[in-house]
Amino acid sequence: MNMTVIQSVKKKKMQNSEEEKLIARRLKITDKKKGFIELLQQLSICDSVSEKEFEDRFQELESLGDDHVICVIEDEISGKIIATGSVFIEKKFLRNCGKVGHIEDVVVDSSARGKQLGKKVINFLTDHARSVGCYKVILDCSVENRAFYEKCGFKPKEIQMAMYFV
Amino acid sequence: MNMTVIQSVKKKKMQNSEEEKLIARRLKITDKKKGFIELLQQLSICDSVSEKEFEDRFQELESLGDDHVICVIEDEISGKIIATGSVFIEKKFLRNCGKVGHIEDVVVDSSARGKQLGKKVINFLTDHARSVGCYKVILDCSVENRAFYEKCGFKPKEIQMAMYFV
Repeated sequence: MNMTVIQSVKKKKMQNSEEEKLIARRLKITDKKKGFIELLQQLSICDSVSEKEFEDRFQELESLGDDHVICVIEDEISGKIIATGSVFIEKKFLRNCGKVGHIEDVVVDSSARGKQLGKKVINFLTDHARSVGCYKVILDCSVENRAFYEKCGFKPKEIQMAMYFV
Repeated sequence: MNMTVIQSVKKKKMQNSEEEKLIARRLKITDKKKGFIELLQQLSICDSVSEKEFEDRFQELESLGDDHVICVIEDEISGKIIATGSVFIEKKFLRNCGKVGHIEDVVVDSSARGKQLGKKVINFLTDHARSVGCYKVILDCSVENRAFYEKCGFKPKEIQMAMYFV
């Protein structure tokens, strides 16, 4: 192999090992200090979450077990959370006491786009919804993000309506 | 008063007493035999819910307390459930550990339309979401139902995407 080929192989190996480290997993209580809240701030307002508030909400969601799962991807080199998304399981009477997964709050760090991390998060969440017996999984997104979710296997369905109290 | 006026007053009184009986309340375990499942069937597939399945799901939702509320309106004259809708409360880290109400499965019996029962159900559910501290309440609906929800105070926001497993 000449130098260019060796460099190319090295680069490929580095990329592979970097990607191997980018694994989707459930949120841990220690992820607050890895920038989890700062990542959410890229999505919407989230200015003041104290340690206590974070821990209380974490325990509250933890107690729901498989009915509320938050997925994160940690960049093990920087030690930062660089992608997240959540799914909670709604239990209905409809559809013969069916269950529906609701995906919320999906965001990929602005510096980590283009690595298919969004797709990894969505796959993790839809796999979870499927594994607990949901008949469908749904989410709301902006018109700009429609194509991304179509690539993930979603289809446009209805329109979302909202009423804000604050 | 002439006969026409007396008849008109009587009719008005009957209407008022009829409307007084149409009160939005939480689902009770005894509502299955009042046609609750048959009402849901007007909305989507819901063919076989046994007593056992109904009771199990009822208890499961009951254990969530204020985090999952199903509203019904009973016609006390016929003893039938003629309107329903549900709201469940999602707990987030976003929005400073905010909460969001998700409205689902709203339906009014086809024979009871035009009595503002849909609005009564929606008001019950949004009041509940507000009272437990949600910063917003959201729902997905067809384009045809958009005007109804706008009258209830909702505004169009995003698009709903869905992935079906079955």
